[in-house]
Amino acid sequence: MSVEGPALAPRGADIAPFYTGRIARRAGDLARAGREIVPMHFGQPTAGTPALAQRAARATLDADLVGYHESRELIARIVRHYHDSYGVALAPERVLLTNGASAALVAVFAAMTRPGDRVAVARPGYPAYRNALAGLGRVAVEIDCGAADDYRLTAAAVAATPGPLHALVVASPANPTGAMIDRAGLAAIAATCRERGTVLLSDEIYHGISYGARAVSALEVDDQAIVINSFSKLYRMPGWRLGWLVVPAAIAPRLSAYVINFFLTPPTIAQHAALAAFDDPAALDAAVGDYRANRERLIGALAAAGVTRVAPPDGAFYLYADVSHLTRDSLGFCLRLLEETGVAIAPGIDFDPLHGGGTVRFSFALRPAEVERAIERLVPWLRQQKPL
Amino acid sequence: MSVEGPALAPRGADIAPFYTGRIARRAGDLARAGREIVPMHFGQPTAGTPALAQRAARATLDADLVGYHESRELIARIVRHYHDSYGVALAPERVLLTNGASAALVAVFAAMTRPGDRVAVARPGYPAYRNALAGLGRVAVEIDCGAADDYRLTAAAVAATPGPLHALVVASPANPTGAMIDRAGLAAIAATCRERGTVLLSDEIYHGISYGARAVSALEVDDQAIVINSFSKLYRMPGWRLGWLVVPAAIAPRLSAYVINFFLTPPTIAQHAALAAFDDPAALDAAVGDYRANRERLIGALAAAGVTRVAPPDGAFYLYADVSHLTRDSLGFCLRLLEETGVAIAPGIDFDPLHGGGTVRFSFALRPAEVERAIERLVPWLRQQKPL
Repeated sequence: MSVEGPALAPRGADIAPFYTGRIARRAGDLARAGREIVPMHFGQPTAGTPALAQRAARATLDADLVGYHESRELIARIVRHYHDSYGVALAPERVLLTNGASAALVAVFAAMTRPGDRVAVARPGYPAYRNALAGLGRVAVEIDCGAADDYRLTAAAVAATPGPLHALVVASPANPTGAMIDRAGLAAIAATCRERGTVLLSDEIYHGISYGARAVSALEVDDQAIVINSFSKLYRMPGWRLGWLVVPAAIAPRLSAYVINFFLTPPTIAQHAALAAFDDPAALDAAVGDYRANRERLIGALAAAGVTRVAPPDGAFYLYADVSHLTRDSLGFCLRLLEETGVAIAPGIDFDPLHGGGTVRFSFALRPAEVERAIERLVPWLRQQKPL
Repeated sequence: MSVEGPALAPRGADIAPFYTGRIARRAGDLARAGREIVPMHFGQPTAGTPALAQRAARATLDADLVGYHESRELIARIVRHYHDSYGVALAPERVLLTNGASAALVAVFAAMTRPGDRVAVARPGYPAYRNALAGLGRVAVEIDCGAADDYRLTAAAVAATPGPLHALVVASPANPTGAMIDRAGLAAIAATCRERGTVLLSDEIYHGISYGARAVSALEVDDQAIVINSFSKLYRMPGWRLGWLVVPAAIAPRLSAYVINFFLTPPTIAQHAALAAFDDPAALDAAVGDYRANRERLIGALAAAGVTRVAPPDGAFYLYADVSHLTRDSLGFCLRLLEETGVAIAPGIDFDPLHGGGTVRFSFALRPAEVERAIERLVPWLRQQKPL
C-alpha cells in the first residue's frame, strides 16, 4: 500500500540559489577531470587550519569528546577577545555559540523580527542576507552602496530609506567589496538606528583582516548592537561551521532559546579547535600578511589588464571589480573564464541583483603562488576580451 | 561617541527553552565538583564514535580537508542505504546534507509552509518541533498521543484534527516514547495527509534502533514524503552535527536553496567521518544490542520501584514513564533526583506542556554498567518517594 501523486508545492518564498555554487560545481568537475583550478570564487582561505587548532581537534578525537557540547571555555575566551581587541567588557551570558555565522543570522532574523518585517541590507552585499530573509518571510530592503557611495553604507542612506525599518544588517569589512566603515560612520549609523527603532545587526566575520586601520566593532559604539561573527575567515576554519553571537544581556535568554531550539549545539570538535586557534595570533597574522601582498599584486595586475574600477578593499580578502566594459552577464563571463583559464571567480549577480551583471568578485585568501598562477592566466585572457 | 539606551525588544515569539538544559547545566556543575553523574537526560549515546568514523576524521585532519564541502560520496552512500535498508530508489539530487536534523527541520518548515500556517505534531513529542515552529511564526497544532492512544499517532487522529493543516511531523520511533507506527498505520497517515493537502514530514532519526520489527520509512508508503534523518543516534555522532533530508525531486532545487542560504554547508570532517560510519554495521548493531539489554533491565527495575506505566519502547532508546503518583512537578522531581543520586533524567514538561508535569524520560543509550549504576541509585530513591 502506497499513496501516489505529485509533491505538494512549497509555500515558502522561491529564493535564489548561490550562483557561485554553479562556478564551484563546474570547478569541481574540471578538477576531477585533471584541470588545475585556482579557487578565487568562495570566500575561504586556502592556507589551511592553524596548527594549534588542528592539534586540539586531534586531542578531542583522541579523548572521544564528541557528545553535544557548549564550551564555557570558548565563551570565556571570546569574552577576553572583546576585552583585548576592542576594549569592550561582556558578561559571558551575552555570547552564544552557533553553527556558523549563517545559522546565527537565521536565529537572529527569526528572534528579532516578525514575518513581513523590513530588514535593510547593503547592495551589493552577501546574498544569504537577502535570500535568508526572503526564506523567513521577511522583506529585505536593499540600500544602494555602489561606486557613487564609495561602496560604504552611511547613516544618511539609512535615514533616507523609507518605510518602517525593523532591523539593519551592516558589514564592515563588507562582502563583496572589503569596504570598511570608520568609527564615526558606524556611530552615526547606530544613532540613526536608535532614532528609527531599528535593531542594529553587525556582521563582523572579516574582523582581524584589514589593511589600514583595524575594524571597529558595533559594540564600541552601541552596547546593545547584535554582533555576528565566525571562525571561518581570520581563524581559517570555514568547513568547521562555528560562529558566535554577542547579544544584549536583557534578551540573551530569548535568543539562546532560538539558537538551541533551531540548532541544538554547534559542532563539538570545532569548539575545541577554535579555543586553541586564539593561542597563536602570529599564525593568523601571517596569513593576513599574505593577503596584503596578494591584494597589491592583484590590484596591479587587474589595472594592467584594464580593470581599474574596484571597490576599496580596506579589509576582508576580496576585490569587487567593475567589468561592465566587458560583459553584462557576469555568470556567463565567470563560467567562460573558468573553462578557458581554470581561474574560478564569483559573478556579481550573487551580490547585486540590479547591477551585478557587470561585476565580479575575486577572493585573494590564497597562497601568493596561487595568486601568481591566477594572474598569469587572467591578464592575457582579460586583454583578449572585446569591449562591449 | 557611543549611543545609549536599552535594547530593542525581540519581535519574534517568546519560545520555551529546553528544560532538560537546566538538568544538563546542573549535572555539569556537579560533575565539575567531583560528583559521578549517570547521564540519562540527553538523547545521546555514551558509547562514543564508531572506530571507522574516528579514523576517517583523523585522515581528514591529516589531509587538512576542512574547507566548505558537500560530499557527493556521502550522498551516494545515503542513496545506497535507502536501497539496501528500505528497497527505496532515490536520485542523488533528492538527498540534501544538513547541519544536523535540527537545521533540516528549520529549513523544511520555512520552505514548505508560510508564517501563520498550521503544522501538526504529536504530544508528547520532541520540544524543538513546537518551539522551532513558534520561532518561525508557524502554529504548532498538538495532537494528543498519550496513554489512551497507546502513544501512537493515527490517521484517525490526523483526520479528526480541525482547521487547515499545512504539514504534519510524524516520528517513528518517537521521542520521548520510542513508540513506533507500523507500515499500515504509516500508510494510512500518508493517505490522510494526501486527502487533506498536508505535507508529510517524517523524522526518522531513530531508525536502525528498534527492538522488534524494523522501522518503516515514510518513503516506503509515500514517495513524496519529506524525510529528516541524522548521524546523531544510530551512528553515534551527536556532537558532529550532521543530518540529511530526502525531498521530492520536483522541489529539491527549492529546498536546496533554503539549506544553502540558511546554513551554507554542513561540517566537513563530519561528512568524511559519516561516510566511514556506514562501513561497519556490526559496530552500530553492537550498541543497539546494549540498548536492548538496558531496556529490559530498566523496565524491570522501574517496575520493581512501582513505576509501571511506561510508553511502549518499540525503538529509540527512551523510557517515557508516568510518575504522576509521585509528582506533578517533573522539573523539580528531576532536579531533586539529580542532587540526591547523581542520576540525570529529562522532565516530561519538555515533551508535553499539558501533562508532562507527571512524566519523565530516561535515555538508556548508555553502557550496561552505567545503567546498573543508575538502577542501584534510582530504585531505592524511587521507593523512598511518598505517593501524592
